[in-house]
Amino acid sequence: MKLIKNNLSEKIIINKYFKKLNLKKRGTFNFENDGAYLDLKNKKYKLTVTTDSISEDIDFFSNDDPKSIAQKITTVNLSDIFAMGASPHSYLLNLHLPNHINENWLNSFSNQLKKIQHKYGFYLLGGDLSKSNKLIVSSTFFGSIKKKFEIFQNKFNLNDDILITGNIGESKIGLEILKKKFSSNVDLNQYFINKYLYPNPCNLGPLIASHINSMKDISDGLIGDLTDMLNGKYGALLRVNKIPLSIKTKKILNFKNNYKIENFLNAGDDYGLIIISSQKNRNKILSIANKKNIKISCIGKIIKEKGIHFDSHLNLKNIKKFDHFC
Amino acid sequence: MKLIKNNLSEKIIINKYFKKLNLKKRGTFNFENDGAYLDLKNKKYKLTVTTDSISEDIDFFSNDDPKSIAQKITTVNLSDIFAMGASPHSYLLNLHLPNHINENWLNSFSNQLKKIQHKYGFYLLGGDLSKSNKLIVSSTFFGSIKKKFEIFQNKFNLNDDILITGNIGESKIGLEILKKKFSSNVDLNQYFINKYLYPNPCNLGPLIASHINSMKDISDGLIGDLTDMLNGKYGALLRVNKIPLSIKTKKILNFKNNYKIENFLNAGDDYGLIIISSQKNRNKILSIANKKNIKISCIGKIIKEKGIHFDSHLNLKNIKKFDHFC
Repeated sequence: MKLIKNNLSEKIIINKYFKKLNLKKRGTFNFENDGAYLDLKNKKYKLTVTTDSISEDIDFFSNDDPKSIAQKITTVNLSDIFAMGASPHSYLLNLHLPNHINENWLNSFSNQLKKIQHKYGFYLLGGDLSKSNKLIVSSTFFGSIKKKFEIFQNKFNLNDDILITGNIGESKIGLEILKKKFSSNVDLNQYFINKYLYPNPCNLGPLIASHINSMKDISDGLIGDLTDMLNGKYGALLRVNKIPLSIKTKKILNFKNNYKIENFLNAGDDYGLIIISSQKNRNKILSIANKKNIKISCIGKIIKEKGIHFDSHLNLKNIKKFDHFC
Repeated sequence: MKLIKNNLSEKIIINKYFKKLNLKKRGTFNFENDGAYLDLKNKKYKLTVTTDSISEDIDFFSNDDPKSIAQKITTVNLSDIFAMGASPHSYLLNLHLPNHINENWLNSFSNQLKKIQHKYGFYLLGGDLSKSNKLIVSSTFFGSIKKKFEIFQNKFNLNDDILITGNIGESKIGLEILKKKFSSNVDLNQYFINKYLYPNPCNLGPLIASHINSMKDISDGLIGDLTDMLNGKYGALLRVNKIPLSIKTKKILNFKNNYKIENFLNAGDDYGLIIISSQKNRNKILSIANKKNIKISCIGKIIKEKGIHFDSHLNLKNIKKFDHFC
């Protein structure tokens, strides 16, 4: 068997760092087959599937902690699973590893995956390793959802509520602090950097799946993702003072004069959910979120006039859609 | 929306080149959702899943025809699906694209995918695009198989037959001609180069799934893949003159004196199947293969003594296991 430079063969990596993640589930063949079986036991459920990749120098810095990379690849995918109203079931990993990846890195990366698996209840079904000059991590996630539910991103009616979970902008502030574009006090800096390095998905989706019309996660920024949902069919009227910013973000706004709400409307990587639902279900949805201690805000409604409109004047000319492909 | 250098945004690429591959199947949401639904209508079937990646400068040359790259990424995955006894159902694509990828490339790549989809009957479920400095194509394939079948790669008995489909070594010869390690006449050169550039999976798997004990595709070479199957449990006795070489490969052996059967025992990328089955099913399996015009050879049997043994002397000291990760 040939070995790569740092003496790690594919088999050693799988046995030492990834076998612990299959939780000995039937169908994974303990990673000794080239494929796996995937069968939802409950016949009332169907599978949802999503896939996403993150790359060195685009979605993370080359010296980022492997725990952060594990957190990001699971969050981008879990966020899509939850936005489909599904609960996570299992996943595949495609790792493209440069030579500098060593056993410490693999240990830290796989241990963080194990923690996240435990938190949300899913397991590793299989994957693929290859060499690369840059680190790229792709993952395909499977979720389960009742067969009768089908959540479209762009199926809704005039006057429907537009709600979002969590706050916007915190990950963007963290990235700008890391890029030394500005700085606050040490504690605030670390708070925002952690929001960027360790994003969390919002698991409200499956709990409200039966009460909503459409749902999508905010990965490319509120305006960009909402525009995708509107799909040129209707428009949205947003109430600016309802767009949720954390108390800490408001502190930054006070502190940094050239920072305004406009700066956060297309901030990516916050991973809240945009929910579009009939007004009659508003209280039900708010009550489910409140019970789970998930911040939720009704920020506007669907209107006939196409495009995104605000109830007060905003200077939007410099807002560009966030595009992960760019 | 930001654009990449060559003016192709993610949306344009998806709409222009990949939407035609979803065959308007329900559950793909016409690629307007971040995820897809995957539901086998026939309750007697379950899903199989496999994932594999190919990378520029490792699995293909940077100037290879995009049709060849489309052929390779589908073959490596379809081959695993067939080896699990399953029939292809659908797939996901993760494309990591460098800036030089243009519309001609995308057109040619996606048209070849469409041809292969049509040949085997499957569709594109979704995917993910990102930028990269090298071209990397990852894909996750789904297959369907009757719930009662479960094909392990390493479950068999003493004296079981070892059969393989197709010929070994042709892809390796093609690669060596491309690398200018040697040359034959123009027609033979082109024949072997095509075997390397346009490999085909062997679709016998689902037809014999109920008659076999174990199955695996030959992607890393006969010895390497058979060793994986044996898994340190039993051994194999192989009959050297039964190991299948094509007439054209035998011509090369006559022509090139330092080429021997040993050179092909770990030749990768031929994508035949290794089948281990009870002797009593031999005729049934041979007859199914013959009906489909698929070459099949019984090359040996499972024995007690561990390792791989041959019925005549071979010089194996220079044979290294082929490892795609290296």
